[in-house]
Amino acid sequence: MTTINRRVVLVERPVGQALPHHFRVEDVELEPLGDGDVRVAVEFISVDAGTRTMLRGEGFHMQVGLGETILASGVGRVIESKADGFSVGDAVRGGLCAQTIATMPGNMLERVDDSLGPLSLHLGALGGSTGVTAWIGIRDVAKPGPGDDFVVSAAAGAVGSIAGQIAKLDGARVIGIAGGPDKCAHLVDTLGFDEAIDYKNDDVNARLRELCPDGVNVFYDNVGGPILDAVLDNIAMRSRVVICGAVSQYDDMDNVTGPSMYLRLAERQSTMEGFAYFHFPESIEPAKAELARWISDGTIVMPEDILDGIDRYPEALQFMFDGRNVGKLLVKAS
Amino acid sequence: MTTINRRVVLVERPVGQALPHHFRVEDVELEPLGDGDVRVAVEFISVDAGTRTMLRGEGFHMQVGLGETILASGVGRVIESKADGFSVGDAVRGGLCAQTIATMPGNMLERVDDSLGPLSLHLGALGGSTGVTAWIGIRDVAKPGPGDDFVVSAAAGAVGSIAGQIAKLDGARVIGIAGGPDKCAHLVDTLGFDEAIDYKNDDVNARLRELCPDGVNVFYDNVGGPILDAVLDNIAMRSRVVICGAVSQYDDMDNVTGPSMYLRLAERQSTMEGFAYFHFPESIEPAKAELARWISDGTIVMPEDILDGIDRYPEALQFMFDGRNVGKLLVKAS
Repeated sequence: MTTINRRVVLVERPVGQALPHHFRVEDVELEPLGDGDVRVAVEFISVDAGTRTMLRGEGFHMQVGLGETILASGVGRVIESKADGFSVGDAVRGGLCAQTIATMPGNMLERVDDSLGPLSLHLGALGGSTGVTAWIGIRDVAKPGPGDDFVVSAAAGAVGSIAGQIAKLDGARVIGIAGGPDKCAHLVDTLGFDEAIDYKNDDVNARLRELCPDGVNVFYDNVGGPILDAVLDNIAMRSRVVICGAVSQYDDMDNVTGPSMYLRLAERQSTMEGFAYFHFPESIEPAKAELARWISDGTIVMPEDILDGIDRYPEALQFMFDGRNVGKLLVKAS
Repeated sequence: MTTINRRVVLVERPVGQALPHHFRVEDVELEPLGDGDVRVAVEFISVDAGTRTMLRGEGFHMQVGLGETILASGVGRVIESKADGFSVGDAVRGGLCAQTIATMPGNMLERVDDSLGPLSLHLGALGGSTGVTAWIGIRDVAKPGPGDDFVVSAAAGAVGSIAGQIAKLDGARVIGIAGGPDKCAHLVDTLGFDEAIDYKNDDVNARLRELCPDGVNVFYDNVGGPILDAVLDNIAMRSRVVICGAVSQYDDMDNVTGPSMYLRLAERQSTMEGFAYFHFPESIEPAKAELARWISDGTIVMPEDILDGIDRYPEALQFMFDGRNVGKLLVKAS
């Protein structure tokens, strides 16, 4: 059995974009396992936009200390256990961090059902910050339905992909905003969206006016910034803008650019509502169950973009902020 | 009978603050009254922050042309009528504009009940953009109640004064934000608010933390800008931010500063909702009836700040944007 853990630690707090030189990959000897602890061979690490906000050293989110391993959700299998309820071979999910071997108290892990498909599903379609966030954002907050023009930003990303597919299942006309012709083709051809807007090449405001002449009824926003403003400028009367994230702003949370078009809310009697999936604890299990069914019967698809090897985690973060991933971005640790 | 109308016209589109030199006061001969028209001796003209947005020459609101009389609501009495349903002496309200004698089609005027008190009430407590806006904003949108910490900005202004008093009647703890110690004393001593924050001398964020350690449950915003951000930074979980206006932004609507703290909505599962009173047409009559009762029995008070003489209308606009008025700002035309 391996005695070495390879991990990615923070060596410098990024100002602006998080770049590879802010991180170091290092090997450390494993210590003997303590009572109540579990050792996990990490299989997949989730690469999430929200991680950027944990590198600041202050703020509302959990923070990563200098020299500490980057916080990240992961899935893997138990290789050693001194905790009740965990046996070697169990599939688990938790805050495994960006490393190959995680050692942590059993009560910080949850067992997952590996009969549903590859373990990576538990970070993507069935993950709290991904599929479950999309489900809750659609069913508990945005509530699009027949007759609604529904727009989602970062539509080729993990949350956007699923949010758009659920909105479509629920009867809305779905328009995705993503960067580049490949992603836009993916939205329509693979995910079944009705329309796609390429924010890197199109005038988003003009395209929205063209595609939604009566206004956008529901907007599911993952990005903030100019795209949020363009959609606000095109909302219909009594529309709903749902704030799920703001990836455009995470590089500099001390200087967030607010939506200058927010007064359209008053002109058009509309709401902007924010949420996180853990605000709706009662919905998490129903969301997982329905997502698992949809994934297994092919009702929805969850493309994954996997970078191979823990050493590539810093590159993966950059990949995400450059908007290069299509679907759920993962690092295969081992 | 007078044959001269004195009016305030726009001679230059303001960039930034609207100042007296952007306007001209001029006397014009009255023309013979046309069929269907009514001539009104204007008594009071409402001075409204929203007027600034009508001086741009483009945009969503009605616009004032160069050389044209400034659009404004007013009350007065009919002095000549060639319209069915209007007789000399009738009290009327409408878009009388900033002038002493208004001549307009009868179907653009509404008769008002002058038994309720001075005609100026129909621009203040009973006015669409003032008392009715406050009532609808509280009862149909913000809905504060017992246990809520309710905050209102521009609290000494016309809408804020009434919104705060209704929130108090509905059981909330009411905190007003206004500029200067005199206004703050007025909020507590005259309007019966629980607390006041002086944004000109206090650190608004620090005072909100102190006064609302568990967070602000409901915010009724009339100003936007840094005050909106300070309150967003202090919202409670599942709070409601109601956007009624944004007087801080009206001088430069091409470059509105959006709320940089809007991501607090997502962190705290909160909503930002905008409205205008005319989005709730079914509430206008109930609002007027209840406000009239409250005013007549003293349940709520509506202080007025009156500048005497049509020549002072440009000064009155400046007065408003400098935040110098306490209560409803009016110009007495004649």
